[in-house]
Amino acid sequence: MPQTKILLDENEIPTHWYNVVADMPNPPAPPLGPDGQPVGPDALAAIFPEALIEQEMSAERWIKIPDPVREALNMWRPSPLIRAHRLEQALGTPARIYYKYEGVSPAGSHKPNTAVAQAYYNQQAGIKRLSTETGAGQWGSSLALAGQMFGLEVRVYMVKVSYEQKPFRRSMMHTWGAEVLASPSDQTEAGRSILAAHPDSQGSLGIAISEAVEEAASRDDTNYSLGSVLNHVLLHQTVIGQEAQKQFEKIGEYPDVVYAPCGGGSNFGGVAFPFFADKAAGKEVRLVAVEPTSCPTLTKGHYAYDFGDAIGMTPLMLMYTLGHDFMPPGIHAGGLRYHGDSALVSQLYHEGLIEARAVPQLGTFEAGVQFARAEGIIPAPESNHAIRAVIDDALACKESGESQVLFFNLSGHGHFDMAAYDRYFAGELEDFDYPEEAIEEALAHLPKVDAPA
Amino acid sequence: MPQTKILLDENEIPTHWYNVVADMPNPPAPPLGPDGQPVGPDALAAIFPEALIEQEMSAERWIKIPDPVREALNMWRPSPLIRAHRLEQALGTPARIYYKYEGVSPAGSHKPNTAVAQAYYNQQAGIKRLSTETGAGQWGSSLALAGQMFGLEVRVYMVKVSYEQKPFRRSMMHTWGAEVLASPSDQTEAGRSILAAHPDSQGSLGIAISEAVEEAASRDDTNYSLGSVLNHVLLHQTVIGQEAQKQFEKIGEYPDVVYAPCGGGSNFGGVAFPFFADKAAGKEVRLVAVEPTSCPTLTKGHYAYDFGDAIGMTPLMLMYTLGHDFMPPGIHAGGLRYHGDSALVSQLYHEGLIEARAVPQLGTFEAGVQFARAEGIIPAPESNHAIRAVIDDALACKESGESQVLFFNLSGHGHFDMAAYDRYFAGELEDFDYPEEAIEEALAHLPKVDAPA
Repeated sequence: MPQTKILLDENEIPTHWYNVVADMPNPPAPPLGPDGQPVGPDALAAIFPEALIEQEMSAERWIKIPDPVREALNMWRPSPLIRAHRLEQALGTPARIYYKYEGVSPAGSHKPNTAVAQAYYNQQAGIKRLSTETGAGQWGSSLALAGQMFGLEVRVYMVKVSYEQKPFRRSMMHTWGAEVLASPSDQTEAGRSILAAHPDSQGSLGIAISEAVEEAASRDDTNYSLGSVLNHVLLHQTVIGQEAQKQFEKIGEYPDVVYAPCGGGSNFGGVAFPFFADKAAGKEVRLVAVEPTSCPTLTKGHYAYDFGDAIGMTPLMLMYTLGHDFMPPGIHAGGLRYHGDSALVSQLYHEGLIEARAVPQLGTFEAGVQFARAEGIIPAPESNHAIRAVIDDALACKESGESQVLFFNLSGHGHFDMAAYDRYFAGELEDFDYPEEAIEEALAHLPKVDAPA
Repeated sequence: MPQTKILLDENEIPTHWYNVVADMPNPPAPPLGPDGQPVGPDALAAIFPEALIEQEMSAERWIKIPDPVREALNMWRPSPLIRAHRLEQALGTPARIYYKYEGVSPAGSHKPNTAVAQAYYNQQAGIKRLSTETGAGQWGSSLALAGQMFGLEVRVYMVKVSYEQKPFRRSMMHTWGAEVLASPSDQTEAGRSILAAHPDSQGSLGIAISEAVEEAASRDDTNYSLGSVLNHVLLHQTVIGQEAQKQFEKIGEYPDVVYAPCGGGSNFGGVAFPFFADKAAGKEVRLVAVEPTSCPTLTKGHYAYDFGDAIGMTPLMLMYTLGHDFMPPGIHAGGLRYHGDSALVSQLYHEGLIEARAVPQLGTFEAGVQFARAEGIIPAPESNHAIRAVIDDALACKESGESQVLFFNLSGHGHFDMAAYDRYFAGELEDFDYPEEAIEEALAHLPKVDAPA
């Protein structure tokens, strides 16, 4: 019986997070305020605890994971590394395919890896409540779980259209004790002003962020928590790639290519950055961020300073962006519908150190179904993007006869996304190649700040 | 960091199934035909392959698991044994609580353990298609997965009310390539006759069984597959208890009490029978089957010959029963709404070798939420029955100061049951203590066959 699952013991959960900044050829560009000057730590102190602000700015290679966070992670970690024997066989490929399965967390994705760290540091700072936004609900449920573990109240502003269409993600948050409000709500100035102008507003991630940030900024007992994009979030996710390195070492393998879906960047950063450290040390490994053709931030966006939110409340970040008022179509991979990308991922891509690839929606569901029929696990629509790229490359190996080692992060299961699979089977899904003109138009609204040379 | 998960390697998946019949003080009573005479293997050959019929009748203690079945099981097995440190702490109990987590299977419950075995033996017998019924959808999705793994077509007759209310279990079956029909359907005589009489019929498990059996009996290429109750099904589930024994051995623990929810009996038999072997060899261990007060088969039923289905098509089995036309109320643990019980479990209970306990619905959800908030995993409503019993006993330990080892089978996650949690939070769930008169009335319809002395 060929070995399928490569497991680690709980004492092999990483002891430190890996900070990619230490191995980047150039220091990251600082976020800028409305005045065009770099934003200092003080500007963030109203909504984040000091420890997280320090991590956000840190250039230290290794940052110790506090014991209570490691103990929280051991609720589901280490996650298994799985050899996709059955998929390889179905494809008839000589490639060896591996995936790290993050769907073993109670919330069903990689998101709790940072949620427990953020909840811990806020609890240590004496904070009693966290506010956050959620679109599809993956992040909101992860923070609900983490809040429950560290005794913090959690309020989630859930984009109204998701609140109505995804009631079971909402139920999950209730089960873990969180309060969930449809956004726009009447609980914040931001929400009330939107409702006054548009009583029937279905909400957006931008509005929900504004509500959650406003609440955190206006209450001393409350901080804000974000599930992707920021440096400290990507940092917390590096437990994924570090575990995978140990697991490959145990079986004497090493990946030729590492793939992950890329929306805000925490999934990709989490699995790929530890391998980037190897690459920086001379090892040959390709790192591929996979995004939807309908929201092609890395592959078609500009590298420029832009706002992180739709409304323009956040500091300006130097990143690949489609323009902060770019509205991606309603594809079924909510986690990948973001106009920008992590500054760290963007800089590595800009410097030619990682690759990016865009794949169309229908092809991702086709790949997801093929994967589910071979490997059993039904993947989240986001994860299907990486699977599409891996299957394409495995089939290329079949043509060429190459036996490459292809490794991807299976970031979550699709148990709360079955409506998307239904639409796929019913032939109701479409591909969206975003028209160049629409991108050009959104990019024309970029704030007038020059990127540093 | 205290150890939480006790893991096994893939090569520690059991090599044999354990057959409890070998250790029972008395041989099981044979099933009877309509003439009151024991039913022989031939009567079953139209719908089951020979290998499964042999297992159904076998008294051998150990039956070898074929290599392809062990390889299929390694898709998700061995499952973890988890020490519920966090729940213990929340309860403040000196009891040590452990659970085996079967929700790691792709279908989310223990059911695939027998589905892959049944699919394998049917494939070996040259069968091309399997027909089955499903209520809540757990069994249908498990057989869909197993059919996909062994190249068999699967048709699932899904009780119409579930077909409409649980669309995502249906999507899951589609993803694994199965055909799903709302039952009653127009594809069978049984379905058509029901529809003719009751065009608006919402279906029942009894009707769906009739449709699936009719299809299997009338087509040479098709067999029938059942997800619980029968001896061979319980046999296949004994991998759960055997793994748990190895896991307890690794940490030098042994349970004082083993708990599982009990509907048809495969969950309870799977985890408890291997411990019954220890008990038969002189070890002290209590085995507790937990059922709903709304369907109190073991605790309030009679030990008598009765039909396995609602309509009276199956052989008569000697078992605890509430009467084959007993209609349990629509509680949210569909897997426990069965008028009868496995003949093996029934006999062990009748002989005083195992215990049974009934718990009310509201208390099971309260226990499930408490468990989810401490341990992360959101349990299936069926599993909540075992959790209720364990929490009650852990609180009794707190009173008495006893440090008992309490172990239960967490048979599945609740990702497809969140609507039930919603109703619980909304205060819409009720307790049903089934009135004695209703039970007496159903028991008055028992077929007139005397149980052997």
